Amino acid sequence: MRFSSRVDISAPNPIAAAEAQCKRDGITLGKLNDSNPTRHGLAPALVPEVYTADPRGPRAAREALAAFLTEQGASSVNPDRLYVLSSTSQAYSWLIKLLCDAGDAVLAPKPGYPLIESIARLECVDTVEYQLCFDGSWMIDVAQLRELLNAPDGGRIRALVLINPNNPTGSYVKPSERAAIVNLCREHDVAIIADEVFYDYTLEPFDNNARIAGETGVLTFALDGFSKMLAAPHAKVGWIQVSGPDDDVTEAQRRLDVIADDYLPMSDIIARIIPDLLADAPQQTARVQERVRGNLAALHRLLDADELGVVSVLRAEGGWNVLLRVPSVIDENELVLAMIKRHGVSGQPGYFFDMTSNGYLAISLLPEPDEFERNVRVVLDTVAALIG
Amino acid sequence: MRFSSRVDISAPNPIAAAEAQCKRDGITLGKLNDSNPTRHGLAPALVPEVYTADPRGPRAAREALAAFLTEQGASSVNPDRLYVLSSTSQAYSWLIKLLCDAGDAVLAPKPGYPLIESIARLECVDTVEYQLCFDGSWMIDVAQLRELLNAPDGGRIRALVLINPNNPTGSYVKPSERAAIVNLCREHDVAIIADEVFYDYTLEPFDNNARIAGETGVLTFALDGFSKMLAAPHAKVGWIQVSGPDDDVTEAQRRLDVIADDYLPMSDIIARIIPDLLADAPQQTARVQERVRGNLAALHRLLDADELGVVSVLRAEGGWNVLLRVPSVIDENELVLAMIKRHGVSGQPGYFFDMTSNGYLAISLLPEPDEFERNVRVVLDTVAALIG
Repeated sequence: MRFSSRVDISAPNPIAAAEAQCKRDGITLGKLNDSNPTRHGLAPALVPEVYTADPRGPRAAREALAAFLTEQGASSVNPDRLYVLSSTSQAYSWLIKLLCDAGDAVLAPKPGYPLIESIARLECVDTVEYQLCFDGSWMIDVAQLRELLNAPDGGRIRALVLINPNNPTGSYVKPSERAAIVNLCREHDVAIIADEVFYDYTLEPFDNNARIAGETGVLTFALDGFSKMLAAPHAKVGWIQVSGPDDDVTEAQRRLDVIADDYLPMSDIIARIIPDLLADAPQQTARVQERVRGNLAALHRLLDADELGVVSVLRAEGGWNVLLRVPSVIDENELVLAMIKRHGVSGQPGYFFDMTSNGYLAISLLPEPDEFERNVRVVLDTVAALIG
Repeated sequence: MRFSSRVDISAPNPIAAAEAQCKRDGITLGKLNDSNPTRHGLAPALVPEVYTADPRGPRAAREALAAFLTEQGASSVNPDRLYVLSSTSQAYSWLIKLLCDAGDAVLAPKPGYPLIESIARLECVDTVEYQLCFDGSWMIDVAQLRELLNAPDGGRIRALVLINPNNPTGSYVKPSERAAIVNLCREHDVAIIADEVFYDYTLEPFDNNARIAGETGVLTFALDGFSKMLAAPHAKVGWIQVSGPDDDVTEAQRRLDVIADDYLPMSDIIARIIPDLLADAPQQTARVQERVRGNLAALHRLLDADELGVVSVLRAEGGWNVLLRVPSVIDENELVLAMIKRHGVSGQPGYFFDMTSNGYLAISLLPEPDEFERNVRVVLDTVAALIG
């Protein structure tokens, strides 16, 4: 695997080398220039912890997280392969720094949220879109992915972002797609960044559903966090799980540790309640699951009962959002501006997510049932008024 | 002021424009695609707050911080000019993104800590060092700064990092230096990033001591946080205070809001205790102040009492660290490796901070008095052994 030149991994000076040797020998050295006040009885009463400045995040938090992930999943998660940080946005930022020099590129799904493009641009890195196609359910156009990687400038592509399930299409990565993509990435020396924040929110049954986290065929960074799992975007807890061929993982972590050490974002104020938050996670996921499934069922009922019958919902396999299909004779901007004017409700039409044609509107399944029903009626009323 | 091209500030689409107009008119719109579960009764019990996703950080926390800073300082601090985030490292990262394209440069003090160079490199930005000179006290070589800015490639310099007081030299920016630097930066369209985390830890009296925060002569980003003020590096609370000519501030904040909105790092779990932490700050600063001043006095006594008399301490005006002057006949690596071998204590010699000559060793004033005295004796013993 090729990494960026942003990370300084030059040979350690003689002092750093001696310190590393002592560590390997189990010798704890004193520090003449220790700048950590919490090791000298000076921590404030409200944050009495002794700060360990672990680049991967406080060890106890990573152990609790690894135990939780192991219990949830099929295989054992090693706390040393986890990086706890403030958000998946921060994780994207670190991984783009790790993998891409200025002018390099990452592959990102289309339709998709524009956040990845914005974050990549902040890192001086381009986004190349690969297509998801809909023919009753969504699929990744793997042939196009192959073309993009084989193109003359395909060498600047350093990472492929997989969102599992994708947003707002709600589509999981299928086993056959995954196998083909892992092979492609391995051939082209491209790492996978798998964003699985919506993974637990299954809306439709689907066989052989699996997390990409833990993939061993190619260097893989799986992202998740409390934002969706616990319905707690304000907790600001995310993580990276590193997997893949051992040599690639070792080299990636050596470099990622340097990046993480420059920022050290995980607060002990948060870390101390991570075990309690994890204990609450299954119940929270279930609560949100019930809400979104209930609203999806209501959506189908409302659309079926609508007399005009020109609005439908695209099949979604997972997540919190679905795409409504509205008559494509209505311009998407016109539709949303009319919703704002008539009902004081705004929305995100298909072009926000680079849908390839006009006539889509994303709707969140999160609101309380009565608010959700009002939202659906806003769409139906506005569509009726515009084509009436 | 010139900004980077990393931030997408393209004209808003018609929907975003209509939403902005409603906001200006005081109209609160509903959102068809609201992805914030905390607005729909789904927040977990441990984080019951309704998430506001304010790019500058939760408003209540910024107001508490502004009131605190106003009370501490000479002038009123506006909460809308504050960005609360996870660390000054993150602040550096955001500001370099705001100001510098790949290949641009920032000016950073030498001697100084290597962290700024590492963070800049992660942003594909170079560091150009400007010199601090010692002749009994430290001063900034303003003539050299002018030369660097006037050099043929001086145009790629987009920001000047001032550390007030600098570390490990412990030197404050003097009023005459500040006036000259503000003029230079204004002439050359260069922003100031003023890192003032050690500001409150004065070690020597010095006239007209002033924070750079609030400087109006040129676009200025002042950084501070709880890491030093509260001796709480593990709280992960830092902030940026923006000031300068109004037009520059407005444009800078428009762009900084985009960056902040991509990351939104401030957790409500931390934000909720910021007022309590601020209430504890004066007492915490005083506790640490007492420790470092006591250790500095002890250091002078120990050095004065040393029979060999070949180790001295450079005058430091502020901060937690001071520089010891050791006989320059001893190689710095040899000295620290001997300390490790003889006493199990490591240290950071002058070359770690780009001191221009051999013979320096940084020592922290934070340890408990008995540990601090042992550390000093380790240096004296090792020096004696090496020149004996």
